[in-house]
Amino acid sequence: MTDDIATAVEEQAGSRRGRGARRAARADGGPSPQLPYISRRIKVYEVLDEEGLALIEANADTVLEEIGIEFRDDAEALAMWKAAGADVQGSRVHFPKGLCRSLIKTAPPIFMQHARNPARSVQIGGNATVFAPVYGPPFVHDLDGQRRYATIDDFRNFAKLAYMAPAIHHAGGTLCEPVDVPVNKRHLDMVLTHMTLNDKPFMGSVTAPERAEDTVAMCRILFGEKFVDQNTVVINLINANSPMVFDETMLGAAKVYARANQATIITPFILAGAMSPVTVAGTLTQILAEVLAGAAFTQLCRPGAPVVFGTFASSISMQSGAPTFGTPEPSLVSYGAAQLARRLGLPFRTGGSLCASKIPDAQAAYESANTLNSTLLAGTNFVLHAAGWLEGGLVSSYEKFIMDIDQLGMAQKMADGVDLSANGQAMDAIREVGPGSHYLGCSHTQANFQTAFYRSTIADNNSFEQWHAEGEKRAEQRANDIARNWLAMYEAPALDPGIAEALNDFVAQKKNSMPDAFT
Amino acid sequence: MTDDIATAVEEQAGSRRGRGARRAARADGGPSPQLPYISRRIKVYEVLDEEGLALIEANADTVLEEIGIEFRDDAEALAMWKAAGADVQGSRVHFPKGLCRSLIKTAPPIFMQHARNPARSVQIGGNATVFAPVYGPPFVHDLDGQRRYATIDDFRNFAKLAYMAPAIHHAGGTLCEPVDVPVNKRHLDMVLTHMTLNDKPFMGSVTAPERAEDTVAMCRILFGEKFVDQNTVVINLINANSPMVFDETMLGAAKVYARANQATIITPFILAGAMSPVTVAGTLTQILAEVLAGAAFTQLCRPGAPVVFGTFASSISMQSGAPTFGTPEPSLVSYGAAQLARRLGLPFRTGGSLCASKIPDAQAAYESANTLNSTLLAGTNFVLHAAGWLEGGLVSSYEKFIMDIDQLGMAQKMADGVDLSANGQAMDAIREVGPGSHYLGCSHTQANFQTAFYRSTIADNNSFEQWHAEGEKRAEQRANDIARNWLAMYEAPALDPGIAEALNDFVAQKKNSMPDAFT
Repeated sequence: MTDDIATAVEEQAGSRRGRGARRAARADGGPSPQLPYISRRIKVYEVLDEEGLALIEANADTVLEEIGIEFRDDAEALAMWKAAGADVQGSRVHFPKGLCRSLIKTAPPIFMQHARNPARSVQIGGNATVFAPVYGPPFVHDLDGQRRYATIDDFRNFAKLAYMAPAIHHAGGTLCEPVDVPVNKRHLDMVLTHMTLNDKPFMGSVTAPERAEDTVAMCRILFGEKFVDQNTVVINLINANSPMVFDETMLGAAKVYARANQATIITPFILAGAMSPVTVAGTLTQILAEVLAGAAFTQLCRPGAPVVFGTFASSISMQSGAPTFGTPEPSLVSYGAAQLARRLGLPFRTGGSLCASKIPDAQAAYESANTLNSTLLAGTNFVLHAAGWLEGGLVSSYEKFIMDIDQLGMAQKMADGVDLSANGQAMDAIREVGPGSHYLGCSHTQANFQTAFYRSTIADNNSFEQWHAEGEKRAEQRANDIARNWLAMYEAPALDPGIAEALNDFVAQKKNSMPDAFT
Repeated sequence: MTDDIATAVEEQAGSRRGRGARRAARADGGPSPQLPYISRRIKVYEVLDEEGLALIEANADTVLEEIGIEFRDDAEALAMWKAAGADVQGSRVHFPKGLCRSLIKTAPPIFMQHARNPARSVQIGGNATVFAPVYGPPFVHDLDGQRRYATIDDFRNFAKLAYMAPAIHHAGGTLCEPVDVPVNKRHLDMVLTHMTLNDKPFMGSVTAPERAEDTVAMCRILFGEKFVDQNTVVINLINANSPMVFDETMLGAAKVYARANQATIITPFILAGAMSPVTVAGTLTQILAEVLAGAAFTQLCRPGAPVVFGTFASSISMQSGAPTFGTPEPSLVSYGAAQLARRLGLPFRTGGSLCASKIPDAQAAYESANTLNSTLLAGTNFVLHAAGWLEGGLVSSYEKFIMDIDQLGMAQKMADGVDLSANGQAMDAIREVGPGSHYLGCSHTQANFQTAFYRSTIADNNSFEQWHAEGEKRAEQRANDIARNWLAMYEAPALDPGIAEALNDFVAQKKNSMPDAFT
């Protein structure tokens, strides 16, 4: 039956397009138009009721008061906590009930991160969802199928793809680690790349306080000093060293950014079973405690500084200890953490297109899709690792990037929900067509067919025979073709030459001011 | 950072298991224990509010009254509608407002479908979700990588895998079309296979009324005449010939089953844009109208006969006319249709692990995962095509079957929701471990690690080096190994020899009573 219908549809469609038409694409194979950040019209999905939420919140308060959180190797931070009324014992900070929540009240529930192209500025919080690429991998899976250390050329390539990808709203940060650049100078090249090869909002360096300072200094060149002080132009990933530790590197970066009125994402980095209990509720409790402490700290640095409730949650294989992705438990954690963030009044970050697979195969896709589905329905505001993630985050993959952004386009369409307008109801079409006919040629279809359904860039929906005739390509091979094509046709967005020169001068001067360091 | 942590976890885990441990599996590589049907503890996800639902319901009522539904080539059905108060014009039936809803009130919102092994009986409706394999493909993608016409041996193989798969709760029906068996005798071999090689509930033949009669007759042999009259022992797929047509074949089968108190799934088979409008709301309207007419018809046949609100929704490529899967629009249709079914008080069927890809690659997995996620969260009660579907339903794939059932296991775990017991809260673990340590060896982890996280049968979570050393297998290659292993170790469930003989006699007698027909 399926066969008959497919044949019938094929025949009907044939009258409009001519037989043998290829998968639809822009004439030049380039990307479709850029999409604004997502304004979700669909509901959020929730896994905890009021009782469960109150229980976890009470448990987190107990953790904060009774066990406390370590603020390591940062005397200033400890002094700040003492002055704020916390009970500081060595590097362990115990928080009187309600202290963190009270401090967090000054943080904005919604803020704008500005891009140098104002049309690309994004809302963080509320019903907005923003997709940013993978962050952090030392390796790449390149277009020749090799797994190798990443270089600055790879970084620039991913920046170009992020600029061109319609449903990537944010340039991200460490698209891959450019290991061919000295460790102490990488951040300069990375920030410069985001500022010059893309015009979307981006992330700053957090690997040392002075690198955070460099990031802010470059932002002042790009956006102007006054604008940076009064607006958020860079967002920065501050990971907790779970369980229940913040280290001096992360605290140093957090201080720089918060004091400069720039955004931080306080993120417990959790492989549940290792860095948190093996249960969802226990993991949520620890996440909430860590975020409460970290987010409150940003408000001690500068009340009103934007801060995001971050969660990176995976589980581990209890047989091998290896991180696992796309399993049910991290999805439950994402849904629950999003609820906790909303109750706290903070924007929320989790998820992405996470997977453990070493290659862009079915495992990678199942895991990524499971993660992205829960990320979207949780109501996540900022989605790091939304494209390109492979092998547990050790690898940035060109092919996976192109496959993932297709899924992001689907998520963006999904977020529009159901159109209930008269056109959406389509009663005229049902009347016109009637029983036993088909809708292919009816006027409602003709009027809507361009935008009616999400049009995948990766999926091959053709017949087996046609797919066979075209070389039996796998999804990642089609993605490979697209990545090569886009990189060949990339054109950088215009930038004021004076600003470009000033940025280049800053980077050159900084690089010359210190010897290369590779650790 | 990810790298460091992965290494640390690996080292920690190493102390318990010895280095180089392989992916966990049962010692013999066989399936884990059978799971009962899913009793969802998580909420359903909804995309329509009260206003939207009322709008679509009103529109469906308008379709039923104003446009009507065709009941083709079945004078008895038309007479039944006339007697029930409908306005019958030729084969077009127009339904006075409220007639269908009123008739449907006699249908049970929840019923049990009994299996010959009572432990395998399933609840259809309420918070239950039941997974059944792919239905209908004329082709298989076999374990040697060949795409070819399916045979009865393939059918038996899929029946064996369905019996062994832990999260497959239902044997399904036409696991593939055994094209080597004459068309007029296939149903006998298929039903016999379900009854003898599996002990889970199954589906009957709908390709002709007399084949439905044969199915019921065989059920009476297996379950006893009286039991069959008073209980539901077979469920049957009655597709509407969308838009707005029921044909004599489907009506004939529906009459047989409903009158025998057996269950039907009234399913508009929709490739939106061809068989329904190009919009979600328009498609939902037509689906609701078709189901209202079809489900009401079953109640004319026998008030109280179990009937399921079915939906098969895909969209088509508006460029090529080809069916597409895993896109946002069918997910929105599934969510919306589930809401309409709940308001109507009928169990709901949709979704599965649908895809358009010709091979079990990333495209197949993205599409299947997107479909399955929405299927689960919609609160679907009966999920046909939950495993093995490939190439738009033209192909039953062994490898895809094994990959999909891993995903079904994840969905089943997800449906458990968040454990908020004292053990789930894990406060003792957080206290025991404290800041800066890890949870791998703590007593809470030791007590829970066996069941803490879903354990994938397909995912390779090992290091790149280990995966490389093991031959760089793709997900479908690991699935291939499992399928071969399972088929080699399959043992049929015990069946009363007298019943087995009676079933074989029935089939032999029927086969001898007519010449072979191949069309």
